[in-house]
Amino acid sequence: MEIQFLGTGAGQPSKSRNTQAIALKLLDERNEIWLFDCGEATQHQILNTTIKPRKITKIFITHLHGDHIFGLPGFLSSRSFQSSDEQTDLELYGPVGLKNFVLTSLRISGSRLAYRIHFHELDKEGKVFEDDTFEVHTQALDHTIFCLGYRVVEKNRVGELDAERLKQDGLPFGPLFGKVKKGERVEYNGKIFDPKQYIGDEKIGKIVTILGDTRKTNAAIRLAYQADLLVHEATYEAQEEKMAKNHGHSTSKQAAQVAHEAQVKRLLLTHISARYVGPLVQLLSNEAKQVHENSYVVKDFYEEKID
Amino acid sequence: MEIQFLGTGAGQPSKSRNTQAIALKLLDERNEIWLFDCGEATQHQILNTTIKPRKITKIFITHLHGDHIFGLPGFLSSRSFQSSDEQTDLELYGPVGLKNFVLTSLRISGSRLAYRIHFHELDKEGKVFEDDTFEVHTQALDHTIFCLGYRVVEKNRVGELDAERLKQDGLPFGPLFGKVKKGERVEYNGKIFDPKQYIGDEKIGKIVTILGDTRKTNAAIRLAYQADLLVHEATYEAQEEKMAKNHGHSTSKQAAQVAHEAQVKRLLLTHISARYVGPLVQLLSNEAKQVHENSYVVKDFYEEKID
Repeated sequence: MEIQFLGTGAGQPSKSRNTQAIALKLLDERNEIWLFDCGEATQHQILNTTIKPRKITKIFITHLHGDHIFGLPGFLSSRSFQSSDEQTDLELYGPVGLKNFVLTSLRISGSRLAYRIHFHELDKEGKVFEDDTFEVHTQALDHTIFCLGYRVVEKNRVGELDAERLKQDGLPFGPLFGKVKKGERVEYNGKIFDPKQYIGDEKIGKIVTILGDTRKTNAAIRLAYQADLLVHEATYEAQEEKMAKNHGHSTSKQAAQVAHEAQVKRLLLTHISARYVGPLVQLLSNEAKQVHENSYVVKDFYEEKID
Repeated sequence: MEIQFLGTGAGQPSKSRNTQAIALKLLDERNEIWLFDCGEATQHQILNTTIKPRKITKIFITHLHGDHIFGLPGFLSSRSFQSSDEQTDLELYGPVGLKNFVLTSLRISGSRLAYRIHFHELDKEGKVFEDDTFEVHTQALDHTIFCLGYRVVEKNRVGELDAERLKQDGLPFGPLFGKVKKGERVEYNGKIFDPKQYIGDEKIGKIVTILGDTRKTNAAIRLAYQADLLVHEATYEAQEEKMAKNHGHSTSKQAAQVAHEAQVKRLLLTHISARYVGPLVQLLSNEAKQVHENSYVVKDFYEEKID
């Protein structure tokens, strides 16, 4: 599981930071990539990565501000252009209004897609997705318009069966093997085969919390609780707390406080105002680290493995 | 008067060509810039030029395909962000549906602009703008959806009055000066002052024709008739005439034929398919030059003076 930032700026693109988009790469886990927000020129950013648009099977939109959605019509159209084979459906999650924006844009531009979009307009909190291996939960944050945060939970996986050793110890391949794998004690030729001895440790799933624009809020703490990774906006430096509040945003310090209170392992800060360039970015980073040591201010294209 | 290409690709962005947008810089003439089409990431391209978004006072859209309009919501929003003073209104011309796309995008994204947009939805051909110095005419082209070409006509300007010489020859400053300037013969102190001797040559205005996507069509020839500059799409090479026809596009040769038949001075080719990279671009250029010598295949950010 890796995360890559395709846009890390606030409000409008600058020369160094594009508008918001984050790719959560679940290639080993699901052979899929999930996208969080899709600001203008997200498809352009993708051209400079190894990401294949057809691998993006889910897009989660935090809120409907332009710097988070204006790249959707172009991305969706190009995704259709790029694959000639049978195309994978796409699930699109986000606030009410998203469907109207996407369908109006596609209709007026005469764009016909070779795949289906399944819209999930979210107007309340809770679990928005679950299958055998993953769950996604959402809660409303505190911004100037309705804005969501997402908690992606990888389910724990049972450990692997050490088939080689089981065979060496005398259990022949067959139905009894399956029983041990399922956790049953098995007797064979007078010998007891205890699954605990042949099944490895349970693999604890990762928890990744990706938030939209928000003031410091308890909802963020709940969504991020004991996450392996929290992605929080940090539009301003600590002393601009008043401005942050007025504009519905957070300071780097506030983001770190959320990370600290939620006991997250790692904090990545994004949605950085264009006023912070060069050494000023270090200021945001230092302010966060004072509260939550394992913090980092990301740049466009920054990628890290979640472990 | 200069023209700068902000995007020269076809259909979707590639690493070397962005989607369509052309800036016609009328800074000396009007202290304005007119934009033709606004594909996704036009505002990003502008960041790498000297263009100030607030100087863009008119946008002419050729047709509603995504690679020509998906940059509008972002550009319009950022244009508002960037100027704190009193903001200039913006005139937006294009096919019916444009207003719905723009207003839906701005409304759903909660974008409030600090200036007014005046929409001019065009469903028929003719003159769409005229003032003291410029006219703009439009005709429908031949594409897969309703698509327009624009002919920008700078009006001829009367020559300048040589006031210094008029004074030397004995005419005092005052109302009589004004009469000569207006082209009237004036008698003073028994001497005749003939305006032809004091007013310089009429300055012939430039004609620039910028077309949207199109098959080879007579409408293009009419719009481009004796223009100083024609911007024509050239999506494919000459041997792909069938494909061009099927997709509503032109080959470089066909574009040059239009330029030749319309007797234009200069032909710039844009909207180049992503299949043509490196030396293959030379092929398009050579094919055009064989028909119309003064032709050139443009790249993103290419700029030239129109004279």
